Amino acid sequence: MRTIGIIGLGLMGGSMAIDLKRRGFADRILGVEKEAVNASAAEKIGLVDELVPYETCIGEADIIVVAVPVGTAVKMVCDILDRFQDLGARDKIVIDVCSVKEQVCLATRYHPCRGQFVSTHPMAGTEYSGPWAAMPNLFDGRACIFADAEESSPKALKVIEGLYDVLNMRPTYMNAANHDVHTAYVSHISHVTSFALALTVLDKEKDEKHIFDLASGGFSSTVRLAKSNADMWVPILTQNRGNVLRVMDTYIEKMQQFRAAVADFDEDKVRNLIEEANRIKKILR
Amino acid sequence: MRTIGIIGLGLMGGSMAIDLKRRGFADRILGVEKEAVNASAAEKIGLVDELVPYETCIGEADIIVVAVPVGTAVKMVCDILDRFQDLGARDKIVIDVCSVKEQVCLATRYHPCRGQFVSTHPMAGTEYSGPWAAMPNLFDGRACIFADAEESSPKALKVIEGLYDVLNMRPTYMNAANHDVHTAYVSHISHVTSFALALTVLDKEKDEKHIFDLASGGFSSTVRLAKSNADMWVPILTQNRGNVLRVMDTYIEKMQQFRAAVADFDEDKVRNLIEEANRIKKILR
Repeated sequence: MRTIGIIGLGLMGGSMAIDLKRRGFADRILGVEKEAVNASAAEKIGLVDELVPYETCIGEADIIVVAVPVGTAVKMVCDILDRFQDLGARDKIVIDVCSVKEQVCLATRYHPCRGQFVSTHPMAGTEYSGPWAAMPNLFDGRACIFADAEESSPKALKVIEGLYDVLNMRPTYMNAANHDVHTAYVSHISHVTSFALALTVLDKEKDEKHIFDLASGGFSSTVRLAKSNADMWVPILTQNRGNVLRVMDTYIEKMQQFRAAVADFDEDKVRNLIEEANRIKKILR
Repeated sequence: MRTIGIIGLGLMGGSMAIDLKRRGFADRILGVEKEAVNASAAEKIGLVDELVPYETCIGEADIIVVAVPVGTAVKMVCDILDRFQDLGARDKIVIDVCSVKEQVCLATRYHPCRGQFVSTHPMAGTEYSGPWAAMPNLFDGRACIFADAEESSPKALKVIEGLYDVLNMRPTYMNAANHDVHTAYVSHISHVTSFALALTVLDKEKDEKHIFDLASGGFSSTVRLAKSNADMWVPILTQNRGNVLRVMDTYIEKMQQFRAAVADFDEDKVRNLIEEANRIKKILR
């Protein structure tokens, strides 16, 4: 009889709840959700067996999944490890699923119960959020990063590898600092460029009401991530600030090179930039 | 018996050929393609009934579709109108399908055969190019812009409206200058931001070979347009230079606001920018 406690019943927590239950990894799922509207939706949808207070979840669950925005998650993981220690609960495990890994790994590094914490980043998602966004099969076939896995006890690590195996994820092991550099490049910057694109076009919309009538499929795909939730993204950008700023600087520099080439009527330079960018074809499947 | 001549058998020309033939709008399709490899592919795929020289196409076709990159297209439309005049061919029609409209409309404005030219922009496409990229149903349900339609003869306009009706496109009428402002915002800038994103990440790839192993669905969607072809995009950016530069300036300004807010740890400002960008949800279906 295995009880999983999920704290935060949004896209990630809710989707995990669905698949861990129906695929038999969890016998019982407890949910913790502080937003009343989300809690009642999660209950109505049937994401969890029972909504419980935070303390009850930690007392009763064998595995606790912290699926809240990254700023809150760091403090919560520390608090949960403290409670494990107070309870003398040496078999319980806590995991986080945040998109930034260095701070949570740093904060917990010397905790006496560090071995009971497994820091993971299941790289799956959509631009939607909340329990309504939860869906089956969200994680299938995607990569799951285990950050600083050598800091977890082999026993806890094995259990959580089993959990992600049930979610059909490909495990990847990486130190937390490297993880944050990688995600700045292949995830965080894409969100920022989409936000900036949306802001640019919305600005124009003030005097051109019909600007979106012509929006093409290409525009929709490029701007899709601009629908992403501020509660999630403000703390990600804050916690991964150093890496994100470095990538933004490179990006602004590339835009300025492009701008200069267009402004100078330098068609050879524009062509070189486009052909260099085209190399992305060989890299993305 | 209606013969359509298509000059340029790439994504646009090839896809038009497929649907105009199988939906019965054209009895016969002549193709003109100057790249030998594209010509032989178009023949092998069976996009056209016959590959012919440029002059033959103009002599034999009732409707000529100019589907070549925008720089070449402007000169070609003028040349074709000259030939209509020389041939005394007052019933032939030429259309272009370019993504920039002002120059081609300006260049042809006072041509004695201007009425026989219909300037259109079928807003459909993919990031792929060449006859291999041609596909059925590409245009279904998308918008087709008629630029400066009042300069075309009512008779020619009606025929071409019929052509796009067969392609299941929604007609939209707009002056050429407005069209170019709109497409700078909802299409051209998306391409530039994708090119810049690809360049940024490819730069990093020089020292981090595995940077793309973690590329998420979000990254792929944001960078998709960076696969677009230089032959097509260099002349678009040149011809729509003024509008594109203005949009790029706004965009760079938004990125810099974002950068400053992250650099200053100004979470309220980051949140405001994200929430403002989120308004795109209400606008895109």
